Amino acid sequence: MTKTLQTAVAGVTGYAGAELARLLLKHPRLKGAPPVFVGRVDSGDVARGGVPLTEIHPELAGGYGITGLKQQPFSWDLLVERQVDVLFMATPHEQSREWAPEALKRGIVVIDLSGAWRLVDAANRAVYAFDDDGTEAAATVQAQAVYGAPELHRGKIRGAKLIANPGCYATSVILPLRPLVAAGLVDLNYGIVADSKSGVSGAGKAPTAKTHYMSAADNLSAYGLFGHRHTGELLEQIGLTSDQIVFTPHLLPIPRGILSTIYVRFKEKQTRESIAKVYEEFFKGSPMVRLYSKELPQIQYSVRTNYCDIGFQIDKSGMRCIVVSCLDNLLKGASGQAVQNLNVMMGWGEAEGLE
Amino acid sequence: MTKTLQTAVAGVTGYAGAELARLLLKHPRLKGAPPVFVGRVDSGDVARGGVPLTEIHPELAGGYGITGLKQQPFSWDLLVERQVDVLFMATPHEQSREWAPEALKRGIVVIDLSGAWRLVDAANRAVYAFDDDGTEAAATVQAQAVYGAPELHRGKIRGAKLIANPGCYATSVILPLRPLVAAGLVDLNYGIVADSKSGVSGAGKAPTAKTHYMSAADNLSAYGLFGHRHTGELLEQIGLTSDQIVFTPHLLPIPRGILSTIYVRFKEKQTRESIAKVYEEFFKGSPMVRLYSKELPQIQYSVRTNYCDIGFQIDKSGMRCIVVSCLDNLLKGASGQAVQNLNVMMGWGEAEGLE
Amino acid sequence: MTKTLQTAVAGVTGYAGAELARLLLKHPRLKGAPPVFVGRVDSGDVARGGVPLTEIHPELAGGYGITGLKQQPFSWDLLVERQVDVLFMATPHEQSREWAPEALKRGIVVIDLSGAWRLVDAANRAVYAFDDDGTEAAATVQAQAVYGAPELHRGKIRGAKLIANPGCYATSVILPLRPLVAAGLVDLNYGIVADSKSGVSGAGKAPTAKTHYMSAADNLSAYGLFGHRHTGELLEQIGLTSDQIVFTPHLLPIPRGILSTIYVRFKEKQTRESIAKVYEEFFKGSPMVRLYSKELPQIQYSVRTNYCDIGFQIDKSGMRCIVVSCLDNLLKGASGQAVQNLNVMMGWGEAEGLE
Amino acid sequence: MTKTLQTAVAGVTGYAGAELARLLLKHPRLKGAPPVFVGRVDSGDVARGGVPLTEIHPELAGGYGITGLKQQPFSWDLLVERQVDVLFMATPHEQSREWAPEALKRGIVVIDLSGAWRLVDAANRAVYAFDDDGTEAAATVQAQAVYGAPELHRGKIRGAKLIANPGCYATSVILPLRPLVAAGLVDLNYGIVADSKSGVSGAGKAPTAKTHYMSAADNLSAYGLFGHRHTGELLEQIGLTSDQIVFTPHLLPIPRGILSTIYVRFKEKQTRESIAKVYEEFFKGSPMVRLYSKELPQIQYSVRTNYCDIGFQIDKSGMRCIVVSCLDNLLKGASGQAVQNLNVMMGWGEAEGLE
Repeated sequence: MTKTLQTAVAGVTGYAGAELARLLLKHPRLKGAPPVFVGRVDSGDVARGGVPLTEIHPELAGGYGITGLKQQPFSWDLLVERQVDVLFMATPHEQSREWAPEALKRGIVVIDLSGAWRLVDAANRAVYAFDDDGTEAAATVQAQAVYGAPELHRGKIRGAKLIANPGCYATSVILPLRPLVAAGLVDLNYGIVADSKSGVSGAGKAPTAKTHYMSAADNLSAYGLFGHRHTGELLEQIGLTSDQIVFTPHLLPIPRGILSTIYVRFKEKQTRESIAKVYEEFFKGSPMVRLYSKELPQIQYSVRTNYCDIGFQIDKSGMRCIVVSCLDNLLKGASGQAVQNLNVMMGWGEAEGLE
Repeated sequence: MTKTLQTAVAGVTGYAGAELARLLLKHPRLKGAPPVFVGRVDSGDVARGGVPLTEIHPELAGGYGITGLKQQPFSWDLLVERQVDVLFMATPHEQSREWAPEALKRGIVVIDLSGAWRLVDAANRAVYAFDDDGTEAAATVQAQAVYGAPELHRGKIRGAKLIANPGCYATSVILPLRPLVAAGLVDLNYGIVADSKSGVSGAGKAPTAKTHYMSAADNLSAYGLFGHRHTGELLEQIGLTSDQIVFTPHLLPIPRGILSTIYVRFKEKQTRESIAKVYEEFFKGSPMVRLYSKELPQIQYSVRTNYCDIGFQIDKSGMRCIVVSCLDNLLKGASGQAVQNLNVMMGWGEAEGLE
Repeated sequence: MTKTLQTAVAGVTGYAGAELARLLLKHPRLKGAPPVFVGRVDSGDVARGGVPLTEIHPELAGGYGITGLKQQPFSWDLLVERQVDVLFMATPHEQSREWAPEALKRGIVVIDLSGAWRLVDAANRAVYAFDDDGTEAAATVQAQAVYGAPELHRGKIRGAKLIANPGCYATSVILPLRPLVAAGLVDLNYGIVADSKSGVSGAGKAPTAKTHYMSAADNLSAYGLFGHRHTGELLEQIGLTSDQIVFTPHLLPIPRGILSTIYVRFKEKQTRESIAKVYEEFFKGSPMVRLYSKELPQIQYSVRTNYCDIGFQIDKSGMRCIVVSCLDNLLKGASGQAVQNLNVMMGWGEAEGLE
Repeated sequence: MTKTLQTAVAGVTGYAGAELARLLLKHPRLKGAPPVFVGRVDSGDVARGGVPLTEIHPELAGGYGITGLKQQPFSWDLLVERQVDVLFMATPHEQSREWAPEALKRGIVVIDLSGAWRLVDAANRAVYAFDDDGTEAAATVQAQAVYGAPELHRGKIRGAKLIANPGCYATSVILPLRPLVAAGLVDLNYGIVADSKSGVSGAGKAPTAKTHYMSAADNLSAYGLFGHRHTGELLEQIGLTSDQIVFTPHLLPIPRGILSTIYVRFKEKQTRESIAKVYEEFFKGSPMVRLYSKELPQIQYSVRTNYCDIGFQIDKSGMRCIVVSCLDNLLKGASGQAVQNLNVMMGWGEAEGLE
């Protein structure tokens, strides 16, 4: 009998980290092997061996068996000592650029939730301004990275050593668009519009003027026009040039959830049936995508699930189509998809621990 | 000295009606002449002369001098007796189709907040399925109606007898788009996308599954795809054919406010300055439009004001532009604009009673 | 090997019903035996054998295996044919007064989520004005009912045939107060105050003026002063007379969750330690109560869990104490507690299927 | 003709400061004399003469005539040069302790919104730990301070040089309780409970973990048990000892508004009429208090007004009473009451500029 897989989580303190902890602690394949939690720990807390998870996430107390678990100071020695097989990184991209290469050297598989290794094209990476971009070392690591969208790259994920887990907005646009573009149906001369709206957890845990209740509640604002970091993922994963799509994110006054409204024009007249068929074939064998045939998805339906919900409507002419997609930005848009990638990688049921 | 103008309000019970009451009761030109409130009154309440406004809108108690005011049963005799000059109708469109012609006959000016008289083109009116559409009587009334967007039709409003007050969504799309299209800058071959988001008050006061707190809160949903009633106003007022624009409304989890994100492609390269100039010239002398030069408008900035806020951003190529507009759906999108129309009609300051 | 327990749920359409379905469908002891869903079904739907659960609760699609499940028209024949062992009733209390006696006759155990059988004292039942109150038949059924608070009546629940599942507000007040009163610490001459606040799901799924988003959002209101139906449960379960406690519910602008702030005065000086000890002993062996020692519970910590969280603070004099309790009104306050009662009744782990 | 009163506002950047600016800019008695805005200004902004109000509060652009107005660096010279008559301080209490004495020396009247000068009893002031407490200078200033509750101290406010504007929570508890206690009706042996709930603006503009949208939304929490700073105001203004009242604040998931639920026991049996009479007499001539006779006040009714709304209910015995009060924490609870104090002080209509 093989030993239970040992995971580690760097960055459990954030919103995605909390969800990751929740999922891994309850994962049927990881019973008895809670993740090793590592991260930056204040000197005062180092003395007591790290910060108890019950202090970081009191909402996990009871039911998750976190008594005794701590976020310990990050060290390679600790990971080696604990025989960590897979390291999840819910850390800023700078951290992932630094740690992922070292983990690979040490034979630790990395599932990285940041934008550090998602982009193949240097032009698309420019918005991140990575210190090490252009170095051979970075290029070597990048070459091993697989974009962790199981619905697109299931085969490559299976043997991957480094998973670049997709961005939350990106997932909500790539999954509904890729099937239509790949089938050659979309008239790219017209330009696609992806108008996305996300809940506040997407803006991170740091208290800022933007995330202050008084600014976020009873409000809606657009931001990152023509320049959001997730744009590069759309281009590379859907197969578009930058003038073929406009993507605009908005900050919604809700805790979590993303809805993207996507406008496309077809090359030739389509019907509800013809498009439904394209989606059904593309997502056959993809348990985490739900296709809507009658009504449209709403944010509430997908929140606290790992599903990406997709619905659409075609106008009378059969030439224009609006696709609406919804997902939970912390699950299918982050930690849930990361666990889905783990499942694929390990050859487990793709939806295990996610329903 | 001329007598103070006597107004009447039909339909004070709804959200737009409440705002209308508030504005008219405080209007500096209407001091001492509170509106006559009329509407459907239950038989029990008829006996006591109508329903006290303090019961309909307890939030207006104190400061608005509503003690003694009642919503009385609607009758033409009452309007004549009270020498009503202007009748505001915050009623369903069926009611406006019935009452407006009669008011005109009796020499009472009508400012109608419904969609009853906004559309010139019969094809656009089809979504309303008016009983009397096609009759000569209806055509005669329609011919007198002026679309009440002061920024577009100030001159005609001045002498109008029947104002068709614009739709809330429509206002948020027409004002930012009309200047660009009128200037011939927009490449209409590409198709404009108007992605609009509105607070729940736009869905009306009737308790429904959709307006239940549990459905509306922590949610976002798209509706009316390719078929919302306000579309006809966009076509007629901006000057577009139906295949040149896609308009999609969404239900936001906030009480009030609309934000529209509008995507256009120019015929020729533009700059921030060239577009800013177009807007400044178009809205010169329009006190209720605020142009944003640095940041983009947010819903919070315009809520509880009568402003339509407009900001925009152009991409590097100078060919694509995103315009963001915000307004309060109950004020600039309904009752505030109605009072603005009254001001224009009477030759008063356009912003009087609205700041 | 014994057969898997067969459950039925009457009233799956409401909020509590949805949670009940979710919990039972995922319960480890009920695998392969989904509940029989019964209720009132429109004649049109009778023809197709009932309403598919995928239509009633689209959010359960995927992961819950509800394809093919329907809410069927209620009939005793159906329950008998399906060999139902336990009937959960998430129905109005009138329904439970009618069906529970019949179920008992037929040997079907009932777990009733309504207020129909919670109250022993006729004076306390008066607020419900049951039609059959005072009849011998009703008294016989009432005598068999056990108040389903496992932390208080674990032993009786084990052999019960009729569980009267506690009210949501009641649970949030009884659990924190009962230990202190039972230990004889509280000076009842002073009067206890229980100030409770609940999310909107507690007001039910019917769209009303009160549950309209515009009324519920950005608001807070008190209601049911000196007369809320849950008061009788407090008196009977804590052991108080009606002049010894005042209970006031409030409607919070959140979807779910209850927080109760409870004010007591002690007979003699107490310390944090002395009170902590009372709680620890009372709730020893109660896995669904979490005691807070440092900070106070907040609604967020307990929402979407079956825990009742309890924290407290004592003033300098050691004579006054404020206890704060939180729970999810749909779980520990309704469906979660119902499943907890099932677990106790069956001798299963009390927290099975609830973490 | 006398010159228009010249006001100054220190601390316009916060939420209360914004409301103060709004009210003073629109005040009918202050037309043509906008406040001088002073405060801490970054060195970079000093160079341009301060920070434009259009940058600090973009929502005031249009309608308030703030073009050209700036928050200038605070200096006594500037106040003297601008002939400031009244200085409003919406600053931290440390600032008010420092500046108020100096202002008095210079003959500038101060209306201070902080807790710096509200408390007469040194024991009550202890929670603030003022550096200068106990000094003769501080005592001299304190002796001149008048607690700015016009409904209680209208006469003294008229000639005051230093107004200590009441706390928001305090106002919501003092106004409903003072009439009952002053009339000798309340049995103080039983202990009063004041359970208060406030919107997030009460927690200030600084982004913190507590004010982060994710913590504040969909939540409720109690804080400051047995120790909130406003307690001293309750004791002094209602006339109670610390063991006669318990006050507990809670953080509500709404932007603004306070609701206090207050529990009292009478010495002798009372009726709705007897208590209504006590309130009516006490608040005769107080235009900013609204008494509710049928339904109870709700937060929505008072938000964005300067009213304190009061309603109550008595139990069947006539011995217990629950009073519910509501107000807007930024208006009647801060800036609105400050302007009300200005009105009283100047002999203007008490409600001028507040309706």
